[in-house]
Amino acid sequence: MSATKSYGERAKLHSNPTAKAFLELMERKKTNLSLAADLTSKAALIELADKVGPYICLLKTHIDVVEDFDQDLVDQLTALAKKHDFMIFEDRKFADIGNTVKLQYSSGIYKIASWSDITNAHTVPGEGIIRGLRDIGLPLNRCLLLLAEMSSAGTLAKGDYTTTTVELARKYKDFVVGFIAMRRYEDKEGDDFIYMTPGVGLDQTTDGLGQQWKHPEVVVRDLGCDVIIVGRGIYDQGRDPAHEAQRYQEAGWKAYKERIQLSN
Amino acid sequence: MSATKSYGERAKLHSNPTAKAFLELMERKKTNLSLAADLTSKAALIELADKVGPYICLLKTHIDVVEDFDQDLVDQLTALAKKHDFMIFEDRKFADIGNTVKLQYSSGIYKIASWSDITNAHTVPGEGIIRGLRDIGLPLNRCLLLLAEMSSAGTLAKGDYTTTTVELARKYKDFVVGFIAMRRYEDKEGDDFIYMTPGVGLDQTTDGLGQQWKHPEVVVRDLGCDVIIVGRGIYDQGRDPAHEAQRYQEAGWKAYKERIQLSN
Repeated sequence: MSATKSYGERAKLHSNPTAKAFLELMERKKTNLSLAADLTSKAALIELADKVGPYICLLKTHIDVVEDFDQDLVDQLTALAKKHDFMIFEDRKFADIGNTVKLQYSSGIYKIASWSDITNAHTVPGEGIIRGLRDIGLPLNRCLLLLAEMSSAGTLAKGDYTTTTVELARKYKDFVVGFIAMRRYEDKEGDDFIYMTPGVGLDQTTDGLGQQWKHPEVVVRDLGCDVIIVGRGIYDQGRDPAHEAQRYQEAGWKAYKERIQLSN
Repeated sequence: MSATKSYGERAKLHSNPTAKAFLELMERKKTNLSLAADLTSKAALIELADKVGPYICLLKTHIDVVEDFDQDLVDQLTALAKKHDFMIFEDRKFADIGNTVKLQYSSGIYKIASWSDITNAHTVPGEGIIRGLRDIGLPLNRCLLLLAEMSSAGTLAKGDYTTTTVELARKYKDFVVGFIAMRRYEDKEGDDFIYMTPGVGLDQTTDGLGQQWKHPEVVVRDLGCDVIIVGRGIYDQGRDPAHEAQRYQEAGWKAYKERIQLSN
């Protein structure tokens, strides 16, 4: 079972080069924290990434909410990724047919495939979406997460939807390295998916727009997820982002250590 | 049953101002054709919209695939919409939680809510996505389509997923005016949803990336859909877009006339 192994042990055995590098990074930096940086100003996003950079393994962006996006933002974020040793995950939630996502991933103003180590996709369009993204991403050494579940109330990503999504991940595991999910699924022989989980909070439980939050202990130790994704819990008004990020890093790492010790 | 009424009759009774204006436009211009304009150059997109404008009721864009997007593109497209009497539908396929889609719809480089009469969303995140978009769109007189089904092979938008989507549309019918769907669903008292259908073609049946095409007769007359969405069938290499658009306009309108006559 991949859940009982350390990130470092899993890195040694992983066949996808980006997933391997990502697992090594988590082990080296002792963090399974991803910052969800949903800021609308370029300067604020850069400032936040620089402050929080030392504590995270992954910067999750919504590049299309940045009012003053330009290529310099991408250059600065990739420089910060190097400086602080984190990867970048554009949370694009691709959700169209294969032909369209190929263009959305490679082209337009954002050229996501050129700078985002990891991106993600919904499986609602069927497997054509994975094949389209894979055509663009695989030659660039990128990798993909599938949305198998969501943290929002009333999500339709459940039951057969989730099961089919896991089957699609296995079918395309040269490119699909993990899931956005609320819990770890049972491994089949040879599986080692990375589970990233939004809706993680140390303090709050709901936002009134259908979003729900769970404690890192529950998410990582009890439900077996690998990466905690935290946004407003780190940078909401009145919070000190570096201080909060450190709290989440410690809570996430403690929960992970407990999980692999419990299992060994 | 809304399927048996003319677009003009439906316009008279429709409570949503944008849906009403759209149905009036279709009746006045005798077209139920939407152009899916997936071009990556601003100049090419403007040229195509101007050529095809006389034959369409709706220009469907993927604004994020345009390499040289700027505000002038938006200004030119809205001017063409006025010149040729069509509406604009940014096919964004929003697919995130409420808090995120509010930002994606209103902010960033594209400011979709400021120029796109109609947009669309997946229901996989649950109803928070509709509430988030509605917070932004309703005050601007915009409206939303939900993706109840898709035309791509192996889509997970089927069965309970589709049923729940229709229920969500009814719950928020001040903002949700219709569906992306492959067939018309049974009306409940007071329903008048507009059904828009991709994957319509007069000539070809598949693209090798999971996309499948159906004839306008089948889609409009037999399956009861209102708007045919056609892309590559109109502007693929070697085709004369104005000529092809006219063919699709005629085929779509003929199928619609047959439907309302068959029903009366």
